[in-house]
Amino acid sequence: MKAKDLEDFAVKVMKTVGCDEKRANIVAEVLVEADMRGISSHGVARLKRYVDHIRTGIIDPKAEPVVIFETPVSIVVDGRNGVGQYISYVSMEKTLKKAKENGICITAVRNSNHYGIAGYYAEMASKEGMIGISLTNTAPLVVPTFSKEALLGTNPIAFAFPLPNNHILLVDMATSVVPRGKLEVYSRLRKDIPEGWAVDETGRVTRDPDRVLLNVKEKKGGGLLPLGGEGETFGGHKGYGLALMVEILSAGLSLGSFSYETYTNAGRISHFFAVMDISLFGGPKEIEGHVFKLVERLKNAEKAEGAERIYVHGEKEYEKREKSLRAGVEIDDPTAENLRKLATELGLESPF
Amino acid sequence: MKAKDLEDFAVKVMKTVGCDEKRANIVAEVLVEADMRGISSHGVARLKRYVDHIRTGIIDPKAEPVVIFETPVSIVVDGRNGVGQYISYVSMEKTLKKAKENGICITAVRNSNHYGIAGYYAEMASKEGMIGISLTNTAPLVVPTFSKEALLGTNPIAFAFPLPNNHILLVDMATSVVPRGKLEVYSRLRKDIPEGWAVDETGRVTRDPDRVLLNVKEKKGGGLLPLGGEGETFGGHKGYGLALMVEILSAGLSLGSFSYETYTNAGRISHFFAVMDISLFGGPKEIEGHVFKLVERLKNAEKAEGAERIYVHGEKEYEKREKSLRAGVEIDDPTAENLRKLATELGLESPF
Repeated sequence: MKAKDLEDFAVKVMKTVGCDEKRANIVAEVLVEADMRGISSHGVARLKRYVDHIRTGIIDPKAEPVVIFETPVSIVVDGRNGVGQYISYVSMEKTLKKAKENGICITAVRNSNHYGIAGYYAEMASKEGMIGISLTNTAPLVVPTFSKEALLGTNPIAFAFPLPNNHILLVDMATSVVPRGKLEVYSRLRKDIPEGWAVDETGRVTRDPDRVLLNVKEKKGGGLLPLGGEGETFGGHKGYGLALMVEILSAGLSLGSFSYETYTNAGRISHFFAVMDISLFGGPKEIEGHVFKLVERLKNAEKAEGAERIYVHGEKEYEKREKSLRAGVEIDDPTAENLRKLATELGLESPF
Repeated sequence: MKAKDLEDFAVKVMKTVGCDEKRANIVAEVLVEADMRGISSHGVARLKRYVDHIRTGIIDPKAEPVVIFETPVSIVVDGRNGVGQYISYVSMEKTLKKAKENGICITAVRNSNHYGIAGYYAEMASKEGMIGISLTNTAPLVVPTFSKEALLGTNPIAFAFPLPNNHILLVDMATSVVPRGKLEVYSRLRKDIPEGWAVDETGRVTRDPDRVLLNVKEKKGGGLLPLGGEGETFGGHKGYGLALMVEILSAGLSLGSFSYETYTNAGRISHFFAVMDISLFGGPKEIEGHVFKLVERLKNAEKAEGAERIYVHGEKEYEKREKSLRAGVEIDDPTAENLRKLATELGLESPF
């Protein structure tokens, strides 16, 4: 399907449930960007959940975020339970403005909602030649090392750095071994998950994705493992540390809700954005060129036996994006089917 | 052994090879802090290597770091191949000063040397009630995902946040599954390493620590795996992404040497320091108290079956430090033996 058609559909859905033009547009843009890059867990498949969240009052489709505190280099935003992508876009715009004036700006946001792919906002900075960072907490899905309670979010870290010729290096990663979406895929395929992705209600590793998904939903214990896996042997405490850092920088600094306090009567998700002007450190072109040498060295490293290619971060997704622009966006059958239902329910024409 | 005696010995060693009082003191302090916390791989065991590096000209014991670029919120330092701990201490002092004046400061350092535990410098900020970040690249030891060339460093990330009652939350983690020191321990014990720590010269996982250590030393291929392990199944590309981020923020911004370019005629290690004043986001006491609730919640989480305790980051090390202050610092036999030899060689009295 053409990206444009997908985006138009997403805009219509969001408008039908109460968003104005600008809110609907930004939600559609962020979701379709994810689909174009092959990150379907964060694409239009999310529309159904957003519609449900608006209907149950978790998301207020009309809320306007407010700046509740600021200095020349920092902002604190209260999202007032509005649309996550809109709150984040507006917050990043303000962050960029201050960073252009003062070289750097750090922003903490509370009372927001799911904002889509973390990388989108980090990338906004790098499109203007700056370093961008975007972090968020999420619904509680991840167990701290040695615990069986899912208290932490999958708390992604996104880091964007501009490269020559308008390319961008984009690290965008959940701090858990895998995101929840990966378990949902295995569940649909009726496959066991690899040992080391998740633990059951006793806190021990399990290979049953359905058990984990149900346990997390009903808060029965267990959940995803932090990056590095179970215990400390392979560094699970490091993934736990990264998730904790994200929790502090987003919900801590904004006096927002920690992951284990989210999604009760509201989403209350917290974000953190940072923008740094590269000219804080010298000539941007020289620095970008220097980093480009590193990127080239890595891409051309000697391959491990049996390996086909070495990537740098963002490359795979940007290549997929190019392909999607040329050949259309792939939407899997279950997602298309769900969106057809959603269209019918909302009285919209389905493009699927 | 008393921490004081250990520190006195380290001071004498560094002075014997050409450091003045202040340089010798800061090296000794950072090393003994590591030993007190149980991080013996970064403690006085390193003295021998520092002495060798001064003798072979990799470290200039008298060099004074210079600020080569600065703005009200940023600094670039050239360490001029001096003593890593001294360069880093001076750089962090300058970073703290600017952060106190302007709320935030980011510093990139090039041409430095091994700086000991990353956490020491992040902690300097939190001891003054601020958020501290400390990153460094290192000798090349880590293979990018799908490569067999050790191009990246173990590139640690340290993040310190002040808690009530002068406590500090301290995440301090290599972005590889394990640091090199862990392989050295297994080698000494003649034990196989767990599958998933390192790859051999073909780029495939190996359990032989000696093979990996020798290969890395002779640049024959292979090395440590990034956090998340081999390939992408358990998120190895995420650890690779974190290492790349550290590389860019330290060596990229400072126009310094990337890990694969270090330790030729000089160490040429790069660091990155950041300090943020919590009052950029509101009342520091209120924010610290808010984060304290998160910390307490995590510590009191339900334990996994068979687990004894859930830690937050820094806790284990600070408890060990208290114990070391009361009962003395443990120095293992091979380290004591090596330091006795070093003392004899330098004509110093050995406290071991």
